[in-house]
Amino acid sequence: MTERRHHDYPLAGRIDDIAPFHVMDILARARDLEAAGRDVVHMEIGEPDFSTPPAVIAAGIDALRKGYTHYTPALGLWELRRAIADYYARRFAVQVPAERIVVTPGASGALLLALGVLADRDQQVLMADPGYPCNRHFVRFLEGRARSIAVGSEQRYQLTADLIDKHWDETTVAALVATPANPTGTLVTAGEIQAMAQVVRRRGGVLLVDEIYQGLVYGQDSFTALAHGDDMFVINSFSKYFCMTGWRLGWLVVPERYIDAVNRLAQNIFLAASTPAQYAALAAFSPEALAVHEQRREEFRRRRDYLLPALRQLGFHIPVTPDGAFYLYADASALTDDSHRFALQLLERETVAITPGIDFGAHRAAQHLRFAYTTSLPRLQLGVERIARFLAGTPADSQGV
Amino acid sequence: MTERRHHDYPLAGRIDDIAPFHVMDILARARDLEAAGRDVVHMEIGEPDFSTPPAVIAAGIDALRKGYTHYTPALGLWELRRAIADYYARRFAVQVPAERIVVTPGASGALLLALGVLADRDQQVLMADPGYPCNRHFVRFLEGRARSIAVGSEQRYQLTADLIDKHWDETTVAALVATPANPTGTLVTAGEIQAMAQVVRRRGGVLLVDEIYQGLVYGQDSFTALAHGDDMFVINSFSKYFCMTGWRLGWLVVPERYIDAVNRLAQNIFLAASTPAQYAALAAFSPEALAVHEQRREEFRRRRDYLLPALRQLGFHIPVTPDGAFYLYADASALTDDSHRFALQLLERETVAITPGIDFGAHRAAQHLRFAYTTSLPRLQLGVERIARFLAGTPADSQGV
Repeated sequence: MTERRHHDYPLAGRIDDIAPFHVMDILARARDLEAAGRDVVHMEIGEPDFSTPPAVIAAGIDALRKGYTHYTPALGLWELRRAIADYYARRFAVQVPAERIVVTPGASGALLLALGVLADRDQQVLMADPGYPCNRHFVRFLEGRARSIAVGSEQRYQLTADLIDKHWDETTVAALVATPANPTGTLVTAGEIQAMAQVVRRRGGVLLVDEIYQGLVYGQDSFTALAHGDDMFVINSFSKYFCMTGWRLGWLVVPERYIDAVNRLAQNIFLAASTPAQYAALAAFSPEALAVHEQRREEFRRRRDYLLPALRQLGFHIPVTPDGAFYLYADASALTDDSHRFALQLLERETVAITPGIDFGAHRAAQHLRFAYTTSLPRLQLGVERIARFLAGTPADSQGV
Repeated sequence: MTERRHHDYPLAGRIDDIAPFHVMDILARARDLEAAGRDVVHMEIGEPDFSTPPAVIAAGIDALRKGYTHYTPALGLWELRRAIADYYARRFAVQVPAERIVVTPGASGALLLALGVLADRDQQVLMADPGYPCNRHFVRFLEGRARSIAVGSEQRYQLTADLIDKHWDETTVAALVATPANPTGTLVTAGEIQAMAQVVRRRGGVLLVDEIYQGLVYGQDSFTALAHGDDMFVINSFSKYFCMTGWRLGWLVVPERYIDAVNRLAQNIFLAASTPAQYAALAAFSPEALAVHEQRREEFRRRRDYLLPALRQLGFHIPVTPDGAFYLYADASALTDDSHRFALQLLERETVAITPGIDFGAHRAAQHLRFAYTTSLPRLQLGVERIARFLAGTPADSQGV
């Protein structure tokens, strides 16, 4: 029996291992400041500021009018699975059978299914530190072990084939990479995906590729790891590029031999993804909606192109230019040795909200900060002005923070 | 390292332990027959045939028009949590602080959260056999152990305080009961809830009460276990009484000391429930929608009052009158000793679809069948005629099935 750690009532050990997000405290404090009449520049939020495009909203309304409110099959509406397959074919010139595409309640659902069919208790999944914090918590949730591997600017903050090979042991079943990545915005090259897939194959494991920010790539074309093998799991989402966060819809591309296992698990743990969301998402691939997505991508690029040099000029070290997502991950060691405290003080004094590195792992977390450009260019400019004032106006303190 | 059981690729052991639903094969075959032009009477489907009420649809459309497509807080929209608290106060005269109400992606999400904060690996959760099959699979998913306890008509197919006490061991952390229950439609009395809560309390564990079918109760008033303690978890859903299946929305009532743990887990494994669904659900408590729900409840009662005596007359033994949900669980041992084969043959010969007992557990499963009255009275009448012909027309075979 597992030790119950100071509780006289049942409380699963996994809860102690799931860290709360520090950004939630920052967000809560920001809301308090706003309620007190202060203006806060939000650069902490991992969600596009854009609402769902009109064509998608209209499709959702149409579905509701038609009474499409019953369950769909566990793996999703067949039309939507086909539409996603068509999207892979048209945009990436990759053939993915619709049978291998599973519609899920958010990318969270996709990750839960993938890990659920792959990882037994105490089995290990490799991932990068810094990385999206929920990933390691999903593994812990299922009693597996997340092995976070420290990566820095020298690896463009990504796992490599060598790192995977080096950390793979007899308990390892999978490696998880994200491209573009949160919090760093860096991509994995096609060559590196191929190399990683090869190592994982040789080791008898599985490569999981998180493509949640697919499409939000600047100055180059978006790609998919699916071009390099049909034996990997690929996780995707309607939240970011398609601006459908609140609908909670994602998808998982599954190697053929896992389809039955994923179906069985999906039937039991979700029943199905949201029906109105699935009908709405059918319109997310329409020419009209795609034009909106591309306009927004261009807007994100403009924001990045402004914010990146502006932060560098303020003394933040951003050694790798992020090519995707909507985040900049800055080394603030010239300005602070406690990025969490820095974020809290910046919020109190200059009402700019950012996310401390500690939310993304342990590796040099106290030296790092994440800036999200999920607010308009004028607001980003205001934020930069305030950060400059914070750094300039309180030189004594800023040494100490 | 866990044994990999005949696979040369990673496949979690939990998959082998999660049985597929036999009813899915029946449903698939029914769709094939329909595609070939046959008319199938569906008495296998665990979903109301009614669409979401117009007031709720209208609220959903309104939310989409307003662009409410961003994330809500992990525990749900505050207005909805308040609305649910108000519903408990008005309908059941029970005060539940909105802080203790967590909005979830379906009741599935609620169950995943509750078990996730309670059960460590190898810890045991007690539940009834027959019961809703996903329950034991959720426990297995998290590496806990579901202990299914055989119950029969003598316990009205429900756990009792004595059974819980008898099967509780040092690894047990919780007991799960459902009222009304699937597949049997029976209720737990208030007195028995109190007795079970007392035993579980004395044992230092937690009682989970599944009230997913709350409101769908016939000939008596609906009640909530929350009247009998604030230390239990209660699982509920907008799917059944509120007819919102495809929206995937439920809720969990949490003892106060678990709120932080549940919040932490919800942030990581879901982020939040669907935003349009949450806004739509606000209207599910409007007088207009409640009037529709009550009309439908009355319609379900009429169907039960027809189907129950009709099946008994055909030779199905239904010793306990089911007071809720929309199921009849029939002992068919006078007609078959293989209920799965019986269901398959009934579908082939007379195109009536029902669910074999094996989908609900192991205890006398081959003698039982579940009939869902989720189709109109005329269709149920047609179904009964066909079953009568099946039983009468093939007496030699029906002995053998």
